[in-house]
Amino acid sequence: MTVVSVKQALSGKLEAGSKVTVRGWVRTRRDSKAGLSFVNISDGSCFDPIQAVVPATLGNYENEVKHLTAGAGVIVNGTLVPSQGKGQTFELQTESVVVTGFVDDPETYPIQPKQHSMEFLREVAHLRPRTNLFGAVTRVRHTMMTAIHRHLTEQGFFWINTPIITTSDAEGAGDMFRLSTLDLANLPRDDKGKIDFRKDFFGREAFLTVSGQLNVEAYALAMSKVYTFGPTFRAENSNTPRHLAEFWMVEPEIAFADLSADADCAEAFLKAIFKAVLDERADDMTFFAERVLPEAITRLETFISQPFERIDYTDAIEILKKSGQAFEFPVVWGVDLQTEHERYLAEKHIGRPVVVMNYPEQIKAFYMRLNDDEKTVAAMDVLAPGIGEIIGGSQREERLDYLDRRMTKFGLDPATYGWYRDLRRYGTVPHAGFGLGFERLLVYVCGLTNIRDAIPYPRAAGSAEF
Amino acid sequence: MTVVSVKQALSGKLEAGSKVTVRGWVRTRRDSKAGLSFVNISDGSCFDPIQAVVPATLGNYENEVKHLTAGAGVIVNGTLVPSQGKGQTFELQTESVVVTGFVDDPETYPIQPKQHSMEFLREVAHLRPRTNLFGAVTRVRHTMMTAIHRHLTEQGFFWINTPIITTSDAEGAGDMFRLSTLDLANLPRDDKGKIDFRKDFFGREAFLTVSGQLNVEAYALAMSKVYTFGPTFRAENSNTPRHLAEFWMVEPEIAFADLSADADCAEAFLKAIFKAVLDERADDMTFFAERVLPEAITRLETFISQPFERIDYTDAIEILKKSGQAFEFPVVWGVDLQTEHERYLAEKHIGRPVVVMNYPEQIKAFYMRLNDDEKTVAAMDVLAPGIGEIIGGSQREERLDYLDRRMTKFGLDPATYGWYRDLRRYGTVPHAGFGLGFERLLVYVCGLTNIRDAIPYPRAAGSAEF
Repeated sequence: MTVVSVKQALSGKLEAGSKVTVRGWVRTRRDSKAGLSFVNISDGSCFDPIQAVVPATLGNYENEVKHLTAGAGVIVNGTLVPSQGKGQTFELQTESVVVTGFVDDPETYPIQPKQHSMEFLREVAHLRPRTNLFGAVTRVRHTMMTAIHRHLTEQGFFWINTPIITTSDAEGAGDMFRLSTLDLANLPRDDKGKIDFRKDFFGREAFLTVSGQLNVEAYALAMSKVYTFGPTFRAENSNTPRHLAEFWMVEPEIAFADLSADADCAEAFLKAIFKAVLDERADDMTFFAERVLPEAITRLETFISQPFERIDYTDAIEILKKSGQAFEFPVVWGVDLQTEHERYLAEKHIGRPVVVMNYPEQIKAFYMRLNDDEKTVAAMDVLAPGIGEIIGGSQREERLDYLDRRMTKFGLDPATYGWYRDLRRYGTVPHAGFGLGFERLLVYVCGLTNIRDAIPYPRAAGSAEF
Repeated sequence: MTVVSVKQALSGKLEAGSKVTVRGWVRTRRDSKAGLSFVNISDGSCFDPIQAVVPATLGNYENEVKHLTAGAGVIVNGTLVPSQGKGQTFELQTESVVVTGFVDDPETYPIQPKQHSMEFLREVAHLRPRTNLFGAVTRVRHTMMTAIHRHLTEQGFFWINTPIITTSDAEGAGDMFRLSTLDLANLPRDDKGKIDFRKDFFGREAFLTVSGQLNVEAYALAMSKVYTFGPTFRAENSNTPRHLAEFWMVEPEIAFADLSADADCAEAFLKAIFKAVLDERADDMTFFAERVLPEAITRLETFISQPFERIDYTDAIEILKKSGQAFEFPVVWGVDLQTEHERYLAEKHIGRPVVVMNYPEQIKAFYMRLNDDEKTVAAMDVLAPGIGEIIGGSQREERLDYLDRRMTKFGLDPATYGWYRDLRRYGTVPHAGFGLGFERLLVYVCGLTNIRDAIPYPRAAGSAEF
């Protein structure tokens, strides 16, 4: 017997009549009057389970097979035969069933073969990958994450693991998590009575990173094309459906690039990921389209099929002013775009993804490159129908005197950014990059509404993890 | 002009006579008496720089080209021609040179074209990827990390991002970093005067993970083959050449697997990574063999070419006892193997990688499966010449009553492991997995001696990052 995954067994690549072993967990069992049982078995390798047709003649039929319930672990040996059932390619004529584990108290097993609420499933995070929905989310997540690596590797990028523990706040991006090994009940004090962080693990205050961008810039200015891809942390707003305290972020950074090259890079990047999902996860995407969001597939196809539009922020403001829409937030040159504005632009005015470029300098971060008009910086946001802002990026200020001026304006002390300034002193080149929060993209692809459903262990009080 | 990377320009895949643009940083400049300059340019895409032959007839030859020093940023347009120089395939007949940035004060630029001490380079972490050595380490790191994803994806594994922030200590593995958003200068207290962690971000104490294993087991028991690959944290011994406070760990976990299947998985895994390095980074590995460690390539080739040996811990103890070696640590059944023992076994006795299996139960973690002898558990360590222990793994205890007994014996309260126990109540199956610290493997592959040289930003007081 050859051990095969359910995916292999259903693929049609094995000859009918092959003797195989399939291993997995029971989804459903149905007993026929003809003295047979139909046991659907899933192993997570693909969306569909395989049907094992189990004859009553098996020695353990009465005392084991007829007691199988959803979730039981089984090893089934049999012969692969074309299926008569609709929607099934192959099924298993079963020769033996080994039960590795029954389900204790099947009535209370949380993952019954029925629809569960998302709230309930967040409370049983350790079991929810056994559902159709979270099996599919897990596979799509894998495909998107590995497609990111594959695409960037093909383009000549190198993955740089910038530090998770850091002493600097990359963007002033809000509350950070402090990290310490000090005994909180007995904090060391200096002679002025202040907490003595020299006694802490790193000899000073340390935090979890909010972005690897500044660090990865140094690598772009040696290796030309690089990216970070790892967990990132924000200690804010954790209890909304749109925010996570811990999320994965990918940050490509390219040397010898202006804002237009950055937008090209972002467009190719998004299209490559979506193409991988459509090519490699057709079964899971069909499920999302049938059960979660009808346009789940078509909107990705549309996304891929057309070039992104590009407009200037200044033009975007004019479009919004002339739109005749009653926006909640005022439309004035100089303020940041709100979600309502972004969605109007992408969904109603343009109808496909749009890159808005060259934002007012006073609303953007210190490291963004000042344009010749001295009023705007070379920043961009990629907006898309159905999601709004999906990517934020910029050309970086590569001129030391401009950078210093901008730092001072933002209340930052250039002296504390010595190594970052060095990069502008030693062979500076134009460079640019962008950042993308991975889970937001996954939520969009799967048609989910709560970002907690895009991570393996949702962080909610009372869940399995916390 | 087509923009090409140095790698593409040197690859031989472009026709001689092609007009190209190369962009990068100057490594060296040499002026000939014949009125030419030879400028070596590197862009990080491969080990070798490309030589640009710059004629004195260029308009900016005297005032710019002749002032180029190591580190300057340049954009060079020219014609690709076969090189007369030895070791060079192609060079660039230069038509124009644009200098994007000179080096301020070239005499003090840290990355001179000469050998630097590793200690010095750790202090200029933001510039060290511009050296031959750290350029090579960065490329090999990328190749190994992406080979891990590629190999596991080909084998049907799914990447699971287990939580970085956690409330449980997976292995009792030692000191953890505490995470908090409380104001340390003004800690909230409960009515007994204790610190009130209910007021902290997650409503309880939180730490950085030391392992994703327990979390990923739940996914193995739904998806069959999964792995974690992400940063992991240990607040111990950070100041040795062998330990990092922050390192990347890969942890594959497979369902329906015993210890032997686990060892098969580990062997195929290591061989796939080393094969990728030899196939894809021949230039960088040649550098390591020539400049760092002569056997850097040959030992990987040997590693791949033979099957791993497998022996029982009990037999290993007998071998060590009969070895006639004067070990510092005693050899007695029941104690863990020390590095000296591991290296004797792998290097002297067996001469190739060896999997030591079935360790005494009292020295191994609670989740490892008790063997029928009730004295040993199904644990394994993979030992290799030149490095010692490289992988640790085990079959997991899938029987709830055995698990509970082992937890109690280790002083753990089964009630606090509710979700982990659930996995044994609901369709339990034999399963196994292993863990590998990525940077230790990278140090081995490159022939380095200090693990701080295997990460982009070494964490040492006074370095660029801290």
